[in-house]
Amino acid sequence: MKKIIVLMLMLAVMTNCMAQEVVEKLPKPKTEGGMPLMDALKKRSSSRSFSEKEIDRQMLSNLLWAAWGINRPDGKRTAPSSMNKQELSLYVVLKEGAYLYDAVNNSLIRVTEGDVREACGVQAFVGEAPLNVIMVADLKKLGAKAGDKAIASSWANSGYISQNIYLFCASESLATVVRASIDHEKLKAALKLNPDQEIILGQTVGYPK
Amino acid sequence: MKKIIVLMLMLAVMTNCMAQEVVEKLPKPKTEGGMPLMDALKKRSSSRSFSEKEIDRQMLSNLLWAAWGINRPDGKRTAPSSMNKQELSLYVVLKEGAYLYDAVNNSLIRVTEGDVREACGVQAFVGEAPLNVIMVADLKKLGAKAGDKAIASSWANSGYISQNIYLFCASESLATVVRASIDHEKLKAALKLNPDQEIILGQTVGYPK
Repeated sequence: MKKIIVLMLMLAVMTNCMAQEVVEKLPKPKTEGGMPLMDALKKRSSSRSFSEKEIDRQMLSNLLWAAWGINRPDGKRTAPSSMNKQELSLYVVLKEGAYLYDAVNNSLIRVTEGDVREACGVQAFVGEAPLNVIMVADLKKLGAKAGDKAIASSWANSGYISQNIYLFCASESLATVVRASIDHEKLKAALKLNPDQEIILGQTVGYPK
Repeated sequence: MKKIIVLMLMLAVMTNCMAQEVVEKLPKPKTEGGMPLMDALKKRSSSRSFSEKEIDRQMLSNLLWAAWGINRPDGKRTAPSSMNKQELSLYVVLKEGAYLYDAVNNSLIRVTEGDVREACGVQAFVGEAPLNVIMVADLKKLGAKAGDKAIASSWANSGYISQNIYLFCASESLATVVRASIDHEKLKAALKLNPDQEIILGQTVGYPK
């Protein structure tokens, strides 16, 4: 009987360990400075040529805050969201794994260990660049079903976030390109998305080659 | 016989006058300076409270260039466009009339004389604010038909442009809000759009009240 109890306790501990989230706190984002806005707009462009140099955590934190960070005490963000539904999430795909950006806690929540960058897009550069940001809509939060016209608003909302990334990259002399050509099923599996989550856009970021 | 020829000539001249475009050259846009990018992102927000103070032509020129101006010699722009189809046009609705923004010639082409601001949206502030920018997709350029899924890319592309306007307004202490609630038929008539043109988003801009 004792043995059974010990086994059950061990099992409970193991299950708990497995379910426990691996969370990495990001450095505090720098929310001031950068290039003057009009100069950043002048420099904004798409580039598909990336070096392998990694993006450090401070730069990543700044980029994610610029993209979709909280910029007001009421929880509103750097990009608008139709009816403030905030149905979009940013997934961050690095060489070492894939993560969900938690803007409230300025953290990365690990969803996959290991290199799944190649699943982020159909072009070769996607798997080689150090960072892919994937914009994912939660259809439940949006109040829509797959195929609904209402998803158009998530496309607009993703455009706002993507432009923030473009301008941040212009300001920091990073290369970036947004992509809609994505193998949705493959990437959904790599990011362990649930059926209510729909991938909208992917954006590749890195230092220019 | 002479009378008929004179009448025909007069008719020809009149027709030509009626068909002639009323074009207003804008002041050269200021494509440098502005608030540091991260500060603009920190300040970005929606506001629905506008004073009646008009936006002068220099500010308008700067805003339109920031939104969807040409930033490179190859004709590419401050916002990306899927497959570089550049299917979006910006219509500019002011108290005195409605205009099409011609980025290549930095001009406004008049489409309607008189105040049609009220047609730009369903909320009262829309008709009172000095400026509405309407993002309109040309479905022929996009290679899509009304109701097609491909129009989602025009929603994303409009999001990019709209975010440029948001950040410009943050930088210049202007108030702005994007709107999808639009009476499409009413506004299409006011802007004299053709059946291949589809309204995506409207954005109201002005000085804060």
